[in-house]
Amino acid sequence: MNGPNSAGSDEDRAARVALTYLVEPGHRAVWALVQEYGAPATLERLLADDFPDAATRNSVRAKRQGLDPRRFAETTLHRAARLGARIVVPSDDEWPARVDSLALLELDLPGRINRDVRPPLCVWVRGGRRLGETLDRSVAVVGARASTGYGNNVTADLTYGLVEHGWTVVSGGAFGIDAAAHRATLAAGGRTVAVLACGVDRPYPAGNAGLFERVAEKGLLISEWPPGSEPLRHRFLIRNRVIAAATAGTVMVEAAARSGAIQTMSRVLALRRAAMVVPGPVTSAMSVGCHELLRSRPDATLVTDAVDVLEAVGKMGEYGRPPARGPEHRRDTLDEESALVLEALPPRGSISPEELAARAGLALRRVLRRLSLLEVAGLVERRDGKVTLARRAKAAP
Amino acid sequence: MNGPNSAGSDEDRAARVALTYLVEPGHRAVWALVQEYGAPATLERLLADDFPDAATRNSVRAKRQGLDPRRFAETTLHRAARLGARIVVPSDDEWPARVDSLALLELDLPGRINRDVRPPLCVWVRGGRRLGETLDRSVAVVGARASTGYGNNVTADLTYGLVEHGWTVVSGGAFGIDAAAHRATLAAGGRTVAVLACGVDRPYPAGNAGLFERVAEKGLLISEWPPGSEPLRHRFLIRNRVIAAATAGTVMVEAAARSGAIQTMSRVLALRRAAMVVPGPVTSAMSVGCHELLRSRPDATLVTDAVDVLEAVGKMGEYGRPPARGPEHRRDTLDEESALVLEALPPRGSISPEELAARAGLALRRVLRRLSLLEVAGLVERRDGKVTLARRAKAAP
Repeated sequence: MNGPNSAGSDEDRAARVALTYLVEPGHRAVWALVQEYGAPATLERLLADDFPDAATRNSVRAKRQGLDPRRFAETTLHRAARLGARIVVPSDDEWPARVDSLALLELDLPGRINRDVRPPLCVWVRGGRRLGETLDRSVAVVGARASTGYGNNVTADLTYGLVEHGWTVVSGGAFGIDAAAHRATLAAGGRTVAVLACGVDRPYPAGNAGLFERVAEKGLLISEWPPGSEPLRHRFLIRNRVIAAATAGTVMVEAAARSGAIQTMSRVLALRRAAMVVPGPVTSAMSVGCHELLRSRPDATLVTDAVDVLEAVGKMGEYGRPPARGPEHRRDTLDEESALVLEALPPRGSISPEELAARAGLALRRVLRRLSLLEVAGLVERRDGKVTLARRAKAAP
Repeated sequence: MNGPNSAGSDEDRAARVALTYLVEPGHRAVWALVQEYGAPATLERLLADDFPDAATRNSVRAKRQGLDPRRFAETTLHRAARLGARIVVPSDDEWPARVDSLALLELDLPGRINRDVRPPLCVWVRGGRRLGETLDRSVAVVGARASTGYGNNVTADLTYGLVEHGWTVVSGGAFGIDAAAHRATLAAGGRTVAVLACGVDRPYPAGNAGLFERVAEKGLLISEWPPGSEPLRHRFLIRNRVIAAATAGTVMVEAAARSGAIQTMSRVLALRRAAMVVPGPVTSAMSVGCHELLRSRPDATLVTDAVDVLEAVGKMGEYGRPPARGPEHRRDTLDEESALVLEALPPRGSISPEELAARAGLALRRVLRRLSLLEVAGLVERRDGKVTLARRAKAAP
């Protein structure tokens, strides 16, 4: 996605930094202005009090009471260079194109944070690898901070398998599953990317400081927020959309009910990426969120190991076991006459047996005989001489 | 399902016992003859060497080299009366009508046992409760013989919850999950039914003898095979179809890969009953079969507790939590223009952008812009200037 003429210039970079200072990443209206007019012109407008909406005005005015945004950008770019961090913008070769698919999302949810899921304006990077190539074949592994030994072990196993097949592992920087994923990837000699909700110079939490150093050395530390930024609580939710959008799919290993990882998964599903869930003991509070997601979202995939994951994200047939959904499962079915009768029933409302016989092209006698059995099987209901399709029969494929 | 005039007479009962002696239960051709001509006439035919097919002839001839079938029936009925066992036939009030839905099944699988899944000709019962009423609101709980502590605990919890809501628990008689289900039901003061693959006078395995006595006292021991019958290996697979057909749904708690419980579940699915699966640790060999089923059969339901089970088998809204598939999940979606473009693409084959624009009713410029994003998102593919729907976009709901 190449913007206007200024794209990639120093002015463009500085303007993107200033804009990220003024409004949080993902901001719908500001992103749209940048697409249309470029980052420098958009910054100019905001600084001239020309706002796309009231919410943007409030946000920008509050921030302008602090530093001068242009000055902030200048200082930050210098500081980043000293720290060994670089800024990557959409016109750069190493821009991870997949994140631009966030432009497709329409999240009609209440609340500003939820609706603001536009692509990043820029990404700060620490580490020697090229960002786009590193993320090209990548899978995110996310989950609970308060993970169990079970979750940590499964994460290590899974991650090992992904590295073996040359995939990059992506996660946040939190304790628990995130840290387990990075550690196992590093131990396996693989590439790992930590997507942070704060500056790449001060990765959070400090307890993972040693781990972050090794990630920066062997993989990448990345963030939408400029160096020096604090890990404010709401930023984790904003960050999650990048984890979802930058990878070929996301695995959720453990999650309590209403875990932050579930929000990431809803972004993954909205993007129609592979949303993979590891089940666990039903007695574990740390698997409740996983089982909830599997129950409520038929488009989420249960995975038990790296082969399952590669099957879900890889090209068809590239990985994987012999398909389990083979025709041998499909052959156990109703007899032909029963199927005809069921198919002839309207999806809603009731119908007389005579009408049904005509529709099905069967003798009334045969239809009545099948109906008795289908009623016993709970597939049809009869009331006042009329026949209705039962709920179960509708739900079944 | 009432048969011909002889139905329910002593002659009818004796003939059904003799037929069960001659051919194993579920036998397709013999069941069809009984439906058409009644049990006494069918027995007469077989004894007069008038066979529906060669397989039946071989089976019947082999058995006739032993006892005289009529004599066997007489002796067995007397013996059963002494043991406190009774025979129940389809014309009896207490016949569990749901098993007759087996008449609907068309299993086009290789091998005789798999194809022979017709309803029982009769059921032997030990216990004071009426069979049909006891099975009316019933759920089967099945699983591994070599169950783990996890599986046993989950079985106990689940079963407790089912009893609390007045449901009967049905299982086989094996060690492991079967026994755990019966024990917990009895402990909770509930009704339990053990479906055996041998005579109700000599329930197998002997190690569960004490448990079987308590089941007969508080619930029911039932079998298609006459008293004295041995638990031959192939009979367990024949028996499984009755567990599947007699209940409103079946829960599989633990199962190794290629477990017998999976065969039961395939019957449950074929009957379009609720096929419920408890997940477990992916590190447990005893949950491999459960996860395999959940991955391969989208019509199987993941359940974590009794509330989930009751939601699956109960009438809509009768039980259960607020539905998890609420519209809030559905709102995270693609923007309108992208959806229009995707919908305008043919399910198979490719199309030019110009044609696509015409179909979608959008300006070519807008279509090209969306296509770039949709391509990045992996939802469409472009080759030689033509556009194709990607596999992922087809699979997603």
